[in-house]
Amino acid sequence: MTKDRLYIYDTTLRDGQQTQGVQFSTPEKHQIAATLDALGVDYIEGGWPGANPTDSDFFAEAPKTKAKFTAFGMTKRAGRSAENDDVLAEVMNAGTKSVCLVGKTHDFHVETALGITLEENQENIRASIAHLVAQGREALFDAEHFFDGYKANPDYALACAKAAYEAGARWIVLCDTNGGTLPHQVFEITRATIAAGIPGSHIGIHTHNDTENAVACSLAAIDAGARQVQGTLNGLGERCGNANLTTLIPTLMLKEPYASQLKTGITDEALRHLTQASRQLDDILNRVPRKQAPYVGASAFAHKAGLHASAILKDPTTYEHIDPERVGNARVIPMSNQAGQSNLRRRLAEAGLEVAPDNPALPMILDEIKRREAEGYTYDSAQASFELLARRALGLMPEFFEVKRYKVTVERRKNKYDQMVSLSEAVVVVKVDGEKKLSVSESLDGDGSDRGPVNALSKALAKDLGRYQALVDEVKLVDFKVRITQGGTEAVTRVIIDSQDAQGRRWSTVGVSANIVDASFDALLDAVNWKLLRDSGEV
Amino acid sequence: MTKDRLYIYDTTLRDGQQTQGVQFSTPEKHQIAATLDALGVDYIEGGWPGANPTDSDFFAEAPKTKAKFTAFGMTKRAGRSAENDDVLAEVMNAGTKSVCLVGKTHDFHVETALGITLEENQENIRASIAHLVAQGREALFDAEHFFDGYKANPDYALACAKAAYEAGARWIVLCDTNGGTLPHQVFEITRATIAAGIPGSHIGIHTHNDTENAVACSLAAIDAGARQVQGTLNGLGERCGNANLTTLIPTLMLKEPYASQLKTGITDEALRHLTQASRQLDDILNRVPRKQAPYVGASAFAHKAGLHASAILKDPTTYEHIDPERVGNARVIPMSNQAGQSNLRRRLAEAGLEVAPDNPALPMILDEIKRREAEGYTYDSAQASFELLARRALGLMPEFFEVKRYKVTVERRKNKYDQMVSLSEAVVVVKVDGEKKLSVSESLDGDGSDRGPVNALSKALAKDLGRYQALVDEVKLVDFKVRITQGGTEAVTRVIIDSQDAQGRRWSTVGVSANIVDASFDALLDAVNWKLLRDSGEV
Repeated sequence: MTKDRLYIYDTTLRDGQQTQGVQFSTPEKHQIAATLDALGVDYIEGGWPGANPTDSDFFAEAPKTKAKFTAFGMTKRAGRSAENDDVLAEVMNAGTKSVCLVGKTHDFHVETALGITLEENQENIRASIAHLVAQGREALFDAEHFFDGYKANPDYALACAKAAYEAGARWIVLCDTNGGTLPHQVFEITRATIAAGIPGSHIGIHTHNDTENAVACSLAAIDAGARQVQGTLNGLGERCGNANLTTLIPTLMLKEPYASQLKTGITDEALRHLTQASRQLDDILNRVPRKQAPYVGASAFAHKAGLHASAILKDPTTYEHIDPERVGNARVIPMSNQAGQSNLRRRLAEAGLEVAPDNPALPMILDEIKRREAEGYTYDSAQASFELLARRALGLMPEFFEVKRYKVTVERRKNKYDQMVSLSEAVVVVKVDGEKKLSVSESLDGDGSDRGPVNALSKALAKDLGRYQALVDEVKLVDFKVRITQGGTEAVTRVIIDSQDAQGRRWSTVGVSANIVDASFDALLDAVNWKLLRDSGEV
Repeated sequence: MTKDRLYIYDTTLRDGQQTQGVQFSTPEKHQIAATLDALGVDYIEGGWPGANPTDSDFFAEAPKTKAKFTAFGMTKRAGRSAENDDVLAEVMNAGTKSVCLVGKTHDFHVETALGITLEENQENIRASIAHLVAQGREALFDAEHFFDGYKANPDYALACAKAAYEAGARWIVLCDTNGGTLPHQVFEITRATIAAGIPGSHIGIHTHNDTENAVACSLAAIDAGARQVQGTLNGLGERCGNANLTTLIPTLMLKEPYASQLKTGITDEALRHLTQASRQLDDILNRVPRKQAPYVGASAFAHKAGLHASAILKDPTTYEHIDPERVGNARVIPMSNQAGQSNLRRRLAEAGLEVAPDNPALPMILDEIKRREAEGYTYDSAQASFELLARRALGLMPEFFEVKRYKVTVERRKNKYDQMVSLSEAVVVVKVDGEKKLSVSESLDGDGSDRGPVNALSKALAKDLGRYQALVDEVKLVDFKVRITQGGTEAVTRVIIDSQDAQGRRWSTVGVSANIVDASFDALLDAVNWKLLRDSGEV
């Protein structure tokens, strides 16, 4: 059986940039375009030439892509010819082989937003598309509000779509611009559009996520016969976002009936870079990747429930809908108060500790974890602290050094210029190899600004640890998270610290206390101990 | 036409807690249950009694809800009677009127994960449900992996579901446990299940978001006739989450065909608190609310594209699928200075400050807020600090007292029993009515345990404020939230403090600094100043 070709159209650089708070620079646009091209999408929409300086710059030095690099714009305005519309001219001047023009298909919008007659609008569509074709460009027509338009006046919406198709548009893209259409309606209206004479091989679908159905609506249109699907990486886009290509691509490639009926331009090998592409975009946007993201999120294959975790150990297909490696992701079995002993043994094995099933320390460790989680600890996100806890219970944790005491002072007072300034100072006293060592540090960073008591404490702790100093020197605190696990006046604070060493190894530790400085200190201590455990050569 | 009743079943406290990194405390569970009950869901699943200490504690002091408070557990194991299964006994001992038991319906799982015969499993289901019914409980059967099971062996999956139904289960909940089933398959299999003899009025749907279709799959099952829908607030849940009730509820209430064919237990008035309920959960989890969340996200009705924004000003329905007020959300139109200022005047009026449109302080306040929000402040959740900032700019804020300096010491050392103990001590120096006052406090609470530096500081600040002392004495710190607004080594801390006075008035203040003690102190200062502003009689 021959498979139908399904085309993937990416609009991360145009509709994705409509996300509140997102503004790509020109170099970032190049970086994203290169990632999309390596992934193998068919079209990359680069922006709207002339609409703003960044988009214009980007088209001026357009990337060379295997994908069809596409300019976005709008149909000509009424009262002038396509040749004489300056907005359209800027779009044409970008010189891309393919051009996508948005136009109205909903009678209400033609009359309310544009204030022109229905006939004028239809003629604007026809003439604009004809102009693109006459100039030798591949023409796409973005039928704005098509589904709402069809619900209000099906004849007019279809007449607009057909005007574009008959003028030579390669694709008529049905847009659910306001994002309010539900999947079964998308299916029916797409089917009706095909029945009205526009073949599915010329129909695209463009949805928004306002009812959390952007992916489902895209699939519904494909079910009805549409053969181009538009979306963005990580579901960026105006308001709640566009259809998420990071989800749609693996669904279309790995799941039935799509996998056996359709083919995309994306290879199985390229698909293995999907998680990486998603994380790269978050890096560019300086966002924390969404853990729960389908397929690519850090939690997408994390099995927290005890029943699930124990079955996964027997056979991963029991609780996984696909093999995470196919999208470049990985399975995670977190420690949690729901996990059982088999999960615990697996986690210990990952930390290099083979423990027999009948080892009496196992139930003790599990109890200790449950007790601590009830206090506010979380070992899901602090694997290094988990390992230290388990090693102590198993008698496999050396004492590298002993903390005798610490003291931190936080002071705010007026300086000689009558400005309020803050300063923290920490003293830590440790005993290493029988020798007592006092260290003191203050909280100022390079530019003289105060970084607070935890900073001072962390520097004092790491200042003199005797023969371990070289190892400790390379540990960098890379992230610091605080949350109050119990509100109100009895507030308990949980601190999670991410550390990194010279080899790029990263690990997380946790501390919990009603005293935030104490909680931080405990997490710092675990971070240092874990490093010594790995690299001191004493274990 | 009479509308079919559709039941909403919330599992935020059980499946929602399977989210990686989520661990609710008992007070948090109570708070969430109260919110769900106010919203008007039909069932609140509280957890699995006996599975862990937090769940057991919660059921021991179960909340009194209008909703049916439900315990979760699993069907009895093979080789013992329902009466003699200790895991089931713990669930029954929680004493809830309704109980939901999960059981297998996929032959592969019965044989691989449980290692028992298909007949044994079917008998476990029947006997467990019969046991619930005999004990006078409303019984729900969670048919785990029902869709995958049906695809592999429809007769067996149906036989299991029917065993539960015939034993008296009120609801047979069809679960897409691995989240890999697509909407059209959910529709067909649900329809086939109804055709096989289980009425839709006894069928529930429970989906996961692994292909971003959890909402669409829930709707597909309802389209096929299911009349109970399960999900969680904000789509929490194992791996990629459960069906998002925050999306499903407004879709079912506001969109066709659901609005005219179905009725839920949720009123239009309660729906207006949906955004608030969603944000409250994020507060509890100390998560940044997802801006792009459908219906309730801060961007859900934000119109960034220029074409959209100008049309919205003519008629909001041009680019909005629903009126944002119906879910307690608000429209956001990009900050033209004009739009920003009228919005600001509205907020000032809410604080009792009528400011003329041409007041030159308005653009200054707007700039100051933008600058501070870029630093990490948030004035949405700290209305009292917003009011103080505006009053200072307007010259309407008296200086009740002046803080000259403060100093906090945090110390951890061994006591005479060789135990590590911590203690914080704070000195605050203020000037009130020309008189300098030194106060000192330590961080111990009634039972002698250390509550940390912020506690000591708060007590020292409130210890002697001269003629304001009586007012300050009645201020209680009722909540304390900390968030790192910028990760990494440059961590910046935001502290939000909720205070309450003798009249039950509650207000929120914010402080931001790289130094967590400083940030806390600023929020405390604002809290005290706001109280004096309201009640000192000097303004």
